[in-house]
Amino acid sequence: MATFQSLPGFREFYPEDCAARNGLFNAWRGAARRHGFVEYDAPVLEPLELFTEKSGEEIRNQLFEFEDKGGRKVALRPEMTPSLARLVAAQAGSLRKPVKWFSIGECFRYEKPQKGRGRSFYQLNADIIGEPGPGADAECIALLVETLRACGLDEGEFEVRISDRKLWFLFFAATGVEETKVPEALAIVDKWDRESKEELKKKLKPYFAAEIDAESIWLSVKNFRQDPMLWLQDVAVTHPHTDSLNVARARGEELKALDQNLKNLGVEKFYRFDFSIVRGLAYYTGFVFEAFQTVGTARALAGGGRYDNLLQRLGGVDLPAVGFGMGDMTTQDLLNELKRPLGGVDKPDVYLVIGSAAERATALSLVGKLRAAGVSVEYPLKDEKYGKQFKAADQVGAKLALILGPDEVAAAQIKIKDMRSGVEVVVPNDAALVANVREIAEKGLPA
Amino acid sequence: MATFQSLPGFREFYPEDCAARNGLFNAWRGAARRHGFVEYDAPVLEPLELFTEKSGEEIRNQLFEFEDKGGRKVALRPEMTPSLARLVAAQAGSLRKPVKWFSIGECFRYEKPQKGRGRSFYQLNADIIGEPGPGADAECIALLVETLRACGLDEGEFEVRISDRKLWFLFFAATGVEETKVPEALAIVDKWDRESKEELKKKLKPYFAAEIDAESIWLSVKNFRQDPMLWLQDVAVTHPHTDSLNVARARGEELKALDQNLKNLGVEKFYRFDFSIVRGLAYYTGFVFEAFQTVGTARALAGGGRYDNLLQRLGGVDLPAVGFGMGDMTTQDLLNELKRPLGGVDKPDVYLVIGSAAERATALSLVGKLRAAGVSVEYPLKDEKYGKQFKAADQVGAKLALILGPDEVAAAQIKIKDMRSGVEVVVPNDAALVANVREIAEKGLPA
Repeated sequence: MATFQSLPGFREFYPEDCAARNGLFNAWRGAARRHGFVEYDAPVLEPLELFTEKSGEEIRNQLFEFEDKGGRKVALRPEMTPSLARLVAAQAGSLRKPVKWFSIGECFRYEKPQKGRGRSFYQLNADIIGEPGPGADAECIALLVETLRACGLDEGEFEVRISDRKLWFLFFAATGVEETKVPEALAIVDKWDRESKEELKKKLKPYFAAEIDAESIWLSVKNFRQDPMLWLQDVAVTHPHTDSLNVARARGEELKALDQNLKNLGVEKFYRFDFSIVRGLAYYTGFVFEAFQTVGTARALAGGGRYDNLLQRLGGVDLPAVGFGMGDMTTQDLLNELKRPLGGVDKPDVYLVIGSAAERATALSLVGKLRAAGVSVEYPLKDEKYGKQFKAADQVGAKLALILGPDEVAAAQIKIKDMRSGVEVVVPNDAALVANVREIAEKGLPA
Repeated sequence: MATFQSLPGFREFYPEDCAARNGLFNAWRGAARRHGFVEYDAPVLEPLELFTEKSGEEIRNQLFEFEDKGGRKVALRPEMTPSLARLVAAQAGSLRKPVKWFSIGECFRYEKPQKGRGRSFYQLNADIIGEPGPGADAECIALLVETLRACGLDEGEFEVRISDRKLWFLFFAATGVEETKVPEALAIVDKWDRESKEELKKKLKPYFAAEIDAESIWLSVKNFRQDPMLWLQDVAVTHPHTDSLNVARARGEELKALDQNLKNLGVEKFYRFDFSIVRGLAYYTGFVFEAFQTVGTARALAGGGRYDNLLQRLGGVDLPAVGFGMGDMTTQDLLNELKRPLGGVDKPDVYLVIGSAAERATALSLVGKLRAAGVSVEYPLKDEKYGKQFKAADQVGAKLALILGPDEVAAAQIKIKDMRSGVEVVVPNDAALVANVREIAEKGLPA
């Protein structure tokens, strides 16, 4: 005999854990369906290059990758988006646009396992493909909010912070930063709160024209980051790049439209604009957003944004896209902290107590009929004493015990005991019983 | 831009495929729950030795195995049973017995992809652990039958064939074959229909005492294979190993009990005993069974049996067990051949038709309220002409179109059109509408 353990960062799902996982999946699915998203899935094992093409060679540090027996370089998917891009691109001509799809898939990353982060996790992905306007971004963000609410989270427990990578680009364009240098400048902004003012001034200066002093640069970035709409009203005076500025102002209108759409959809209590979010991922091209828990540690629960160029790069079709991903582990951790678990192990409607071997045939026949009628039924698989059977009925959480002893069988009757109240009743063991048991299990026996 | 394809033997699930897959999973889950089984899961990636310990080194030919970045030898699971054994063994002391568990998990085998067989597939596993008697075997076989029926298969379309590896062992013991040689003898029996009588006689002879002639051996095996119960009545005359024979006769009683339990549970039309089934897998210790489709090609749909020693070997706890595995692909193929697909892509209850930009705020507010009330709602993400919106409502299969034009908004009303019948009605756009839309979508508008 050998002793084995599961691999570090991989989870076993005993019935309670599995019920919690499925409860989360059901909440995700329900929200997605109410919002008109339909489910798809893709292989968990894919050609390695599908992921390196999107994220570069450095992603390989995080991949479970290997060569299969046919010499193919393959990897367990670290995320769903590249597979989604392939599926949509392959049928781009025939799919009705906008595509509104979601998936619930297992993903894998070779990282140091820690709280809220495993080497295997499940991710909800929801994407709208084929619609470039802010109406699609609003629909995605509304779904994100409603998904978290469907998981049992409420006002004050999470918020979605929205930023705009496109407006950040236009800000830097309007202030004279070269387009190819903007990602570097954004990387500096991404660390704004972790650096001193002097450090930031020194780092930002080289990206701007020599005649603009470091203090003005710092102030301009700071103001934009705090309130980009205010900057859009004020800016013409200090920054002379008028063409970029007009584009930026048009973009400001899209941002207002996003805001208005979200308010109309009724999620106004669950989001705010926050331009301190820059999101490093180079493929985002427009609005970006992250959901954070606002109780306990401020961990990210989900993130997403617009990626209008990725389908072209990965699938060869020019389609705008916006979407988000939400892992299961951080949300599950939060629900546990709030003592608000989702789901629970299924409890049978009925435990059938069998008096002795002589009643077994009658009992099993009833078991078969009840199950055919949709009732979930447990019973002892071998002859057991009454006491042990009632204990079992209690342990599995059966709503009702149905008792078939010699007297009941002789009289073609059965005793029903409501396990919650203890109320008992004797009724004929007939078709009416079979038809009514589910309702009795649901509503309970009257006292 | 690169073009990518999924790996051979791996499936992509476009919405229709995903709906069919989920439909199958729901049928599996429903049947398991009615039978009082609860769901568990385990990692898809496991230490390699977990699988080689159960199945030997030869399993490695079929494994997706590799070394992870931590130098661990790992493999994608080819089956669920070894992980199940570990989970149960680890909590053997605290789990209520019998354990009745099921799982729906993805498994992986590096084989030549062909009809009904992929390199990735889903498998339903259902097991009862901790109960050695035939009552547990009957419960498992009943679940297998009811699972296939829940998938939409009926009488005459499939059957479960039951055999008994233990009785085969006792037969060979009673006829004088050495215990260690029985697996070899069974391997010969496994090919019974594919070999000539002369070939079988020649191969079987060496396992028996020299004085027994080849013709008698062949006849004895043939008779047992055809009807073991008849053999049990007749045997004392020709085979003098009385101790083994008595054990065999006691086992015959268990076989009768299994039969009686299955009849009582109401599945008598869906199984028969067939001792031509031997099942090569060495870890089976008792009843074995396979489900076959009986329309079209006679493919196996599921298989299982009793494995009373495996938990000891894999987990170090001595617990009897019986269970089965059922893949998704053969059942799905059969349902497709019968033109009886399971599930279908979700269709929204409502498509909200928005007259123009002026009505959008009112419309989106209604969308939010309807969704909060559990209604699934689609709407145009940007301004569209009426015609295009009605076409979209039709394409997504919306049950109702709700129409908000300038007149409706001015009058605080809304027009409901039943997309199935064409019937229209104008009602107030109020809380009653929100509360009633699901029922209207379900039942339709009266003509």
